[in-house]
Amino acid sequence: MRGAIIYAPGDVRVEQRDDPRIVNPTDAVIRLAATCVCGSDPWPWRGTDPVIEPTPMGHEYAGVVVEAGGQVRNVKPGDFVIGSFFASDGTCEICRAGYQSRCLQVEAVGAGGAQAEYLRVPLADGTLVATHGQPDADLIPSLLAASDVLGTGWFGAVAADVRPGKTVVVVGDGAVGLLGVLAASQLGAERIIAMSRHESRQKLALEFGATDIVTERGDEGVAVVKELTGGYGAHSVIEAVGTQQSMMQAIRAARPGGHIGFVGVSHGVELPGQEVFYAEVSLLGGPAPVRRFLPQLIALIEDRKIDPGKVFDLALPLDQAAEGYRAMDERRAIKALLQV
Amino acid sequence: MRGAIIYAPGDVRVEQRDDPRIVNPTDAVIRLAATCVCGSDPWPWRGTDPVIEPTPMGHEYAGVVVEAGGQVRNVKPGDFVIGSFFASDGTCEICRAGYQSRCLQVEAVGAGGAQAEYLRVPLADGTLVATHGQPDADLIPSLLAASDVLGTGWFGAVAADVRPGKTVVVVGDGAVGLLGVLAASQLGAERIIAMSRHESRQKLALEFGATDIVTERGDEGVAVVKELTGGYGAHSVIEAVGTQQSMMQAIRAARPGGHIGFVGVSHGVELPGQEVFYAEVSLLGGPAPVRRFLPQLIALIEDRKIDPGKVFDLALPLDQAAEGYRAMDERRAIKALLQV
Repeated sequence: MRGAIIYAPGDVRVEQRDDPRIVNPTDAVIRLAATCVCGSDPWPWRGTDPVIEPTPMGHEYAGVVVEAGGQVRNVKPGDFVIGSFFASDGTCEICRAGYQSRCLQVEAVGAGGAQAEYLRVPLADGTLVATHGQPDADLIPSLLAASDVLGTGWFGAVAADVRPGKTVVVVGDGAVGLLGVLAASQLGAERIIAMSRHESRQKLALEFGATDIVTERGDEGVAVVKELTGGYGAHSVIEAVGTQQSMMQAIRAARPGGHIGFVGVSHGVELPGQEVFYAEVSLLGGPAPVRRFLPQLIALIEDRKIDPGKVFDLALPLDQAAEGYRAMDERRAIKALLQV
Repeated sequence: MRGAIIYAPGDVRVEQRDDPRIVNPTDAVIRLAATCVCGSDPWPWRGTDPVIEPTPMGHEYAGVVVEAGGQVRNVKPGDFVIGSFFASDGTCEICRAGYQSRCLQVEAVGAGGAQAEYLRVPLADGTLVATHGQPDADLIPSLLAASDVLGTGWFGAVAADVRPGKTVVVVGDGAVGLLGVLAASQLGAERIIAMSRHESRQKLALEFGATDIVTERGDEGVAVVKELTGGYGAHSVIEAVGTQQSMMQAIRAARPGGHIGFVGVSHGVELPGQEVFYAEVSLLGGPAPVRRFLPQLIALIEDRKIDPGKVFDLALPLDQAAEGYRAMDERRAIKALLQV
């Protein structure tokens, strides 16, 4: 099969690789309907995360089961399935509490590289969720989005305790931030302030339910949020960047007693204890337990109540994966879909 | 009146001071029934917090209203009242959401120095809660404890999402940690693991409801907690110290999806972003909104259902306040009551 490998910063190649096969009886192998480039993939592309050896890339997937191990009960060949970037057993106390991304047996599905034609998914029963029958082709981008960016934005909103009537700030206008806007809207937020200075992203934020756009950043941005919220700050802040500046912006934009859901993969962040103490805000973040939300998200997509696939503003054949990385790194594209 | 003033590290004097008086029509002046030394008072005593100028000390109080400003409606002269170390208006959105310690008009009651015979309490209507009639003398230590250490331990437990059936770890065996144990027990925790290496404090922790004592600290202590919890870690951790070691111990002792309520005043803490991200725990801390809990805590004390006053294992006349600081700094006493 063909699959993407990163060799060095700026060097992603799609080449011939061995077809994945069942290793453990709890595995399934799927044929991808489509795959994509994640907002976190440009980290090694630009060298912020080191590339130690040639590494298969991609961890977002949706497709059809072609083979299931002998112990797999919940899905079968022919099922159209979506799973998270982390495989989870679904049975340990952590999974049952809804934190499947920290399952005791957690395994990175992306280790096999989902920017490819086929993918081995470990712990298939705990990881994969089947759609109701074969989805219409136009729903595939949205179902693929559920695998990570939608589930991650949704977790950001849930971790930020978004509720009906609340004011929500979203820091970050990548796909996760934009889908955090969508999630906040679905969860009933009254006011959704998207912090973005890019016109195309502002437009999509408004389509997804943002009520206000703030273009200022850092403490200037915080001052505008305070002004918009009667001096109090927001009830909920979704942080979807992962830098020191974005984290401090999120903490400072929240009111005391507010909640911050931080889902941008943390890079070089140090939180000042004293400020966090006196801010008196709830902080919850981490790799999203996407599996918790998948049944609900799939239903919303199948019922055409949400259209998260709109974050894909670039579609390329798998062979041109490198161009997808480049376009996202240069912020020419929000998110690149790769046609398999 | 007589009141305690800190002049320099190790130099606390009780001397003649002006009687406090009504400054704003929302003030009340109370005559203290008793006061005490807080676990945070030894910070300037040992020079960890700087002493820039002679400063009145003490911020825990219970006593009788002797004068009320013209706009005070909720309490009147003769009422026995308890309030928090932070005065709050009780009307802003932050107060109404239960975060009175971050009220828009917040004012440190301790600025006047509660280690004294009389104290001016600003924003009396939003700050003070009256008991049902004059309390029996033996209840006064417990009512005084409600003013800070009990309310702070209680907030730690609530912030740590303690619920029936859960496993709770308490880091810190000062008065706040011990009363965190009491709070966890009252909130229905099934298992309460107190981390303490001091026999007298262990004994009180067990009296307050601890089910296990762990004497190890840091990562060794974390390993024991993991062992006691089937490898998962605790659902809830109450952090009541405020140092880098205690915060990391708290974060590492919690399971993914767990909650940490941190109420030890933060000193020199830097939280590593990446570890906090991957820990996937909820963090909420800060100066406790004690006012939120006062009606409930006063009722529990009046009904003799809890006896938080047991944390006072040393009682001294106010004039010997310095000895109270010394005894707490040297950990000879858990908490010193000062008789007025």
